[in-house]
Amino acid sequence: MKRNESTIIACDAPYEESRIVLFGAPYDSTTSFRPGTRFASQAIRSESFGIETYSPYQKKDMTDYRYFDSGDLELPFGDVMMALDEISSRTKEILRDGKLPFMIGGEHLVTYGAVREVVKKYPELHIIHFDAHADLREEYLGVRFSHASVLRRCHDLLGDGRIFQFGIRSGDRSELEWGEKHVCTHFFDFATLEDVVEQLKGKPVYFTLDLDVLDPSVFPGTGTPEAGGVTFMQLMEAMKKVTSLNIVGLDMNELSPVYDQSGCSTATACKILRELLLFLS
Amino acid sequence: MKRNESTIIACDAPYEESRIVLFGAPYDSTTSFRPGTRFASQAIRSESFGIETYSPYQKKDMTDYRYFDSGDLELPFGDVMMALDEISSRTKEILRDGKLPFMIGGEHLVTYGAVREVVKKYPELHIIHFDAHADLREEYLGVRFSHASVLRRCHDLLGDGRIFQFGIRSGDRSELEWGEKHVCTHFFDFATLEDVVEQLKGKPVYFTLDLDVLDPSVFPGTGTPEAGGVTFMQLMEAMKKVTSLNIVGLDMNELSPVYDQSGCSTATACKILRELLLFLS
Amino acid sequence: MKRNESTIIACDAPYEESRIVLFGAPYDSTTSFRPGTRFASQAIRSESFGIETYSPYQKKDMTDYRYFDSGDLELPFGDVMMALDEISSRTKEILRDGKLPFMIGGEHLVTYGAVREVVKKYPELHIIHFDAHADLREEYLGVRFSHASVLRRCHDLLGDGRIFQFGIRSGDRSELEWGEKHVCTHFFDFATLEDVVEQLKGKPVYFTLDLDVLDPSVFPGTGTPEAGGVTFMQLMEAMKKVTSLNIVGLDMNELSPVYDQSGCSTATACKILRELLLFLS
Amino acid sequence: MKRNESTIIACDAPYEESRIVLFGAPYDSTTSFRPGTRFASQAIRSESFGIETYSPYQKKDMTDYRYFDSGDLELPFGDVMMALDEISSRTKEILRDGKLPFMIGGEHLVTYGAVREVVKKYPELHIIHFDAHADLREEYLGVRFSHASVLRRCHDLLGDGRIFQFGIRSGDRSELEWGEKHVCTHFFDFATLEDVVEQLKGKPVYFTLDLDVLDPSVFPGTGTPEAGGVTFMQLMEAMKKVTSLNIVGLDMNELSPVYDQSGCSTATACKILRELLLFLS
Amino acid sequence: MKRNESTIIACDAPYEESRIVLFGAPYDSTTSFRPGTRFASQAIRSESFGIETYSPYQKKDMTDYRYFDSGDLELPFGDVMMALDEISSRTKEILRDGKLPFMIGGEHLVTYGAVREVVKKYPELHIIHFDAHADLREEYLGVRFSHASVLRRCHDLLGDGRIFQFGIRSGDRSELEWGEKHVCTHFFDFATLEDVVEQLKGKPVYFTLDLDVLDPSVFPGTGTPEAGGVTFMQLMEAMKKVTSLNIVGLDMNELSPVYDQSGCSTATACKILRELLLFLS
Amino acid sequence: MKRNESTIIACDAPYEESRIVLFGAPYDSTTSFRPGTRFASQAIRSESFGIETYSPYQKKDMTDYRYFDSGDLELPFGDVMMALDEISSRTKEILRDGKLPFMIGGEHLVTYGAVREVVKKYPELHIIHFDAHADLREEYLGVRFSHASVLRRCHDLLGDGRIFQFGIRSGDRSELEWGEKHVCTHFFDFATLEDVVEQLKGKPVYFTLDLDVLDPSVFPGTGTPEAGGVTFMQLMEAMKKVTSLNIVGLDMNELSPVYDQSGCSTATACKILRELLLFLS
Repeated sequence: MKRNESTIIACDAPYEESRIVLFGAPYDSTTSFRPGTRFASQAIRSESFGIETYSPYQKKDMTDYRYFDSGDLELPFGDVMMALDEISSRTKEILRDGKLPFMIGGEHLVTYGAVREVVKKYPELHIIHFDAHADLREEYLGVRFSHASVLRRCHDLLGDGRIFQFGIRSGDRSELEWGEKHVCTHFFDFATLEDVVEQLKGKPVYFTLDLDVLDPSVFPGTGTPEAGGVTFMQLMEAMKKVTSLNIVGLDMNELSPVYDQSGCSTATACKILRELLLFLS
Repeated sequence: MKRNESTIIACDAPYEESRIVLFGAPYDSTTSFRPGTRFASQAIRSESFGIETYSPYQKKDMTDYRYFDSGDLELPFGDVMMALDEISSRTKEILRDGKLPFMIGGEHLVTYGAVREVVKKYPELHIIHFDAHADLREEYLGVRFSHASVLRRCHDLLGDGRIFQFGIRSGDRSELEWGEKHVCTHFFDFATLEDVVEQLKGKPVYFTLDLDVLDPSVFPGTGTPEAGGVTFMQLMEAMKKVTSLNIVGLDMNELSPVYDQSGCSTATACKILRELLLFLS
Repeated sequence: MKRNESTIIACDAPYEESRIVLFGAPYDSTTSFRPGTRFASQAIRSESFGIETYSPYQKKDMTDYRYFDSGDLELPFGDVMMALDEISSRTKEILRDGKLPFMIGGEHLVTYGAVREVVKKYPELHIIHFDAHADLREEYLGVRFSHASVLRRCHDLLGDGRIFQFGIRSGDRSELEWGEKHVCTHFFDFATLEDVVEQLKGKPVYFTLDLDVLDPSVFPGTGTPEAGGVTFMQLMEAMKKVTSLNIVGLDMNELSPVYDQSGCSTATACKILRELLLFLS
Repeated sequence: MKRNESTIIACDAPYEESRIVLFGAPYDSTTSFRPGTRFASQAIRSESFGIETYSPYQKKDMTDYRYFDSGDLELPFGDVMMALDEISSRTKEILRDGKLPFMIGGEHLVTYGAVREVVKKYPELHIIHFDAHADLREEYLGVRFSHASVLRRCHDLLGDGRIFQFGIRSGDRSELEWGEKHVCTHFFDFATLEDVVEQLKGKPVYFTLDLDVLDPSVFPGTGTPEAGGVTFMQLMEAMKKVTSLNIVGLDMNELSPVYDQSGCSTATACKILRELLLFLS
Repeated sequence: MKRNESTIIACDAPYEESRIVLFGAPYDSTTSFRPGTRFASQAIRSESFGIETYSPYQKKDMTDYRYFDSGDLELPFGDVMMALDEISSRTKEILRDGKLPFMIGGEHLVTYGAVREVVKKYPELHIIHFDAHADLREEYLGVRFSHASVLRRCHDLLGDGRIFQFGIRSGDRSELEWGEKHVCTHFFDFATLEDVVEQLKGKPVYFTLDLDVLDPSVFPGTGTPEAGGVTFMQLMEAMKKVTSLNIVGLDMNELSPVYDQSGCSTATACKILRELLLFLS
Repeated sequence: MKRNESTIIACDAPYEESRIVLFGAPYDSTTSFRPGTRFASQAIRSESFGIETYSPYQKKDMTDYRYFDSGDLELPFGDVMMALDEISSRTKEILRDGKLPFMIGGEHLVTYGAVREVVKKYPELHIIHFDAHADLREEYLGVRFSHASVLRRCHDLLGDGRIFQFGIRSGDRSELEWGEKHVCTHFFDFATLEDVVEQLKGKPVYFTLDLDVLDPSVFPGTGTPEAGGVTFMQLMEAMKKVTSLNIVGLDMNELSPVYDQSGCSTATACKILRELLLFLS
């Protein structure tokens, strides 16, 4: 008899055989408005069994590929730096073994922990960032490491012209003004994504997907819903384009399951996860 | 003084004068993921008083027609065959009296109980099936009579080329491969519906509407929400086309009111019910 | 040390310097179906701190303008006339000081309390009304002052041809027939809004926005959700047009926060409020 | 085939054979804090099928007696007087036929509509009142007919020394001071109930049970929960005593099902209803 | 790197070293009122990390003992017999290895699957049954294998005088009359438990704990809440007594996490589970 | 016209005239299990208007005394030390003006911020601590400043024998062993409180009330509910005793309103707050 295992559906291949390695980063300590993303990875694991492994969109089946779910990090609430270190450490281990790290947040700040390892391996790293919020603040209530400043911190690592944001429809005026000079912010939708993808062909790309880029009607289960977002099919199209690039790390974050008691947001996150895994396979 | 009656709004005509007879089939015992559709018919009854009897879309009023709500069947949870027998029995009675049976599920399996009676009366029966899920499995966890296999069981009764599915966006690979050979599966939307309607002109048609064909943003109150569904207006257009056919039986199923505490899913189901009744009048 | 203040975000300018004055009318006593709009103004106040003051749509920031939130009226549940008097009284005071009254309902009946003051100052008043429901009944269950009859009561004050409704998709047949003769009802969307705006150029206009004009997928937090509504971006476009007119009073009503536990409806109402304030500045 | 009936469990005897006649008064327009009692009677009807008809406490079965559920009154929200008239009218009809009226609220104000008819038939009427709140205000926000003043209005009809309150643990200081002189307020529990019952032997008694007399742990589903209430078994004992008197009318009110999503409050209300009916049989 | 495991807290010892083996039986297909117990075992697993492994009541720590959580059975909804077979099979395996099976339901019917294996090994088996409901029906809506008849089916296996029920406060009259002759039903509380424990000293005992024996105030998260139940400390005392006997199998059932969104019921179930495991160690 | 103010009911006296000054500390960043206490102070403010200002327990009315609600601190999520500094700073200001600080948490860690100021003014400070959890860990997941270690950190400031805990029913074995040597832990209830109160007569006492000392049936709205707690009336008696001491600072924490959608927990917190304020007046 074996102990109870609980992986994301079809992500139970042997580690050695898996090119993509998933892990959860259940952290939301800097969330200023409504916390809850800490419950996302566990919710995705159990709810993933409510979807099929087959995608009629791609005509591919997860069971034909190898994925490994290495479970959740145990992150200390109340100490941001220690939490980020844990994330970097897991990312490093996966990269060292020549595999692709796929992190499931958590609040958006967790991206920083992954990016700072990925950029060590790929100094030419670019970031494609889907989000409703720019996340470019220098600080928030005096705090420099925060969900609201995570892309700014990533810019500290990568420098100008390396970060491409899409779907942005909320921000403080000053951060957006800063953004105009240092990153490429594409507002509201993915109209300009194709050009960016063309431009980044062959370069190492980290893809960070804040699920609140979706319209709240499609994805109410998030801490800071912003009306006017993209549809599920728009996101699908965009993910298809992004994943045609040389993705060297990625994450999906800001699902907060408790805010959507219908379970639709979690189910949609599971479906997006499946499609991402299949696009990358 | 009379006892408390509780029908769907404007469905309180005398049985004898009514061409359409509604009944509830509050059954969800084979639901594998999240049960709750057993509460649908009762919820529709009480919430239907929150909508108007008049449709500005069709410029028709329910009060100008005769509908009869014969209440809920008392179905034994834990015995699938006994439950299906009850459904067949009520369907038979309604057909015998020359009326049109309109069943409100319940999980999708209830359709089988109705179809197996309707096909006795109309051996040429065809099925138009709106759904997010193909429901074509030979069995599910060893069980042959299940929500996940209901259209497969209907195929046992009708044979090849009689079942037309629309809106499908989820399925096991093997059931979809089987479907390619035996039924007509139209994925994602209703683009090809017009042709099928043309083709079925004059033939007896059973219409089974799994409400999860709608996008979860529109209809979160269901057990297995699938992102990427149709809009309310797309469904309206499609229902208009289908009801132009010779409908000899129909059902609406998979509303699970408890999963949408806003009540919007139930309200939307009531509105769809009203529009269906008026389209058929 | 100062007492705890709680205004809508960025609506804490001195009264004297503010051209727009907001107030809450937390009343829902005549709501026949599902009450709860009484909690709207308070919810908007606290949740407004979850949005930014800057609008990337208009490239304007609330902090550059002056708004005053004068808090909620204390309205007596159970006495409609007394409640309407309180609303009229506050409206009068704001108009007297040459400011623009912006009321946050509450059920839609509160509009009557405001309109009857505004029309005293602007006898040429016209109303632009966005709503899913016509609200034109002569009475509802014997009651003449009701959310279901509020535009009819406004018609008592303004007369024929002064009320322009948009987005209507629900009504009793008789009220819609009455409406055909006395008001201008535009069904389903804003297709004809541009013409009406052209026609009303320069005239004093009261704008009443029943948020259930939005599709329930976008705005489930309301008492009587009606499928088939407009999208957030459609509403934005329409608000932009309306606010180009000579708006002399306005309200936003029918948010019922408890029916949307995800908080998205309240967040969306806050965003709409911000955009309206900026359009009017 | 018969139309769908929906009575409280085992309350479907013929009217003529029933000594106890139930009816719902789904009204909550004067509720100042959190509305929702309008949904109580309907919830009790459907949830009553989750309890047994047999009481192991009394060793009696509802099926051995005759009860009639005459359904809900259709009460106009927004017009208190009209609503009270409807209640009085139904009460009168039941009394006229020599039966015992048992009303299910609704907010507590509905009691007034019943009492004013009962007192016409029984001028010696006394009231036993279980409640957390004294409900003795002369007015509330300027309104004299309100849930907060209902026992004061009953005092207008009955005069001093006829009203006996138990379980009271909340009130405005002035109403409690008034109460000291005009009614018999027993605070916190039923310690003194036995004496009062002794005193009222043989006299006609109206029993009004505000379910919030129960501790919120037992009964969270109510608009104004007050910690420190009685237990279920304490209430059972007290009901047993009260029902040994000459009860000529009664009601049970202030269940607000939406505030207890576990359904326990509604289930408990159903059980109390069963026990009351059996005590009275 | 290892795959994600998810056991109940401190139940991750090697199988070989563990005397107590837990497994989940997530089945609720015969639940007639409100389903949801299928989610119990998974909820207990994740929420168990919210409690401590140390019991201040027993001054013992789970980490000093060996427990093994073998995960959930995959049970086919819609086929009762197949589901019971799976349960029996797992029970048999655990018994064969000389270990103590501890099943987490699921609806109460699952007990039958376990008991029929345990009685094979211990023909002298007795059952101690804590529950609000007698569960002694011969059939329910024509179905013999149902949550409402589970102890009756156990009686089929064990015969008269072997089943001792405590806390019962709900039942159909006829089943209770039957129970008087064939089982030992102790109503309402545990007053007589001590005597029964004395009587059963040394005999093999199966302990089935339906958590709805608790008062709904303590445990609202269950399908059929019954007011008037026992307190947490009363249950603790009773469990201490029962576990002093020769327990050869046990289960805990009828937690339905979705009905208690506060999470208290699940947390309480976890605490009861911890105490039971420690009492048995 | 004045800006919208929102104080706790009857806490709107001028600062100068108030002996007790309340403030909110909406912080929950170190909460390891379920966050949400950040919403407590705001919820208490708005819900406090649902209770009366008069206490029938004490026969005193809040309107006869002077209380000042200075609003919420703006605390930076993600930086514990900065947040604690803000709390200390507000506490210092209140103490400097000779007033009694009454903080409303927030998670329990906020107590540290207050205590470290209070002990500067009152070096002889003792703490009376009501809680389900001992909160005595040296660290939690490597973090020393955490809700799980707050009393340990207070011990760093006060030393042995100064902290008296009551109601404790959960803890890690090692922290409880540590506690035996350094603090006075009274398990489960208040049986020994009277002696402690006797012992502390005249000494300066800080009172920290973690509301989860209450049984979850009474107070489900908290992050880490622990069955087996005290009743509301037991807490009332205990508060009466504690407040007879020389209280020089106090707080009430760990209400997490979102986990109790019935609102009862928040209402109960408001009532406890009223009683505390009146006991202290």
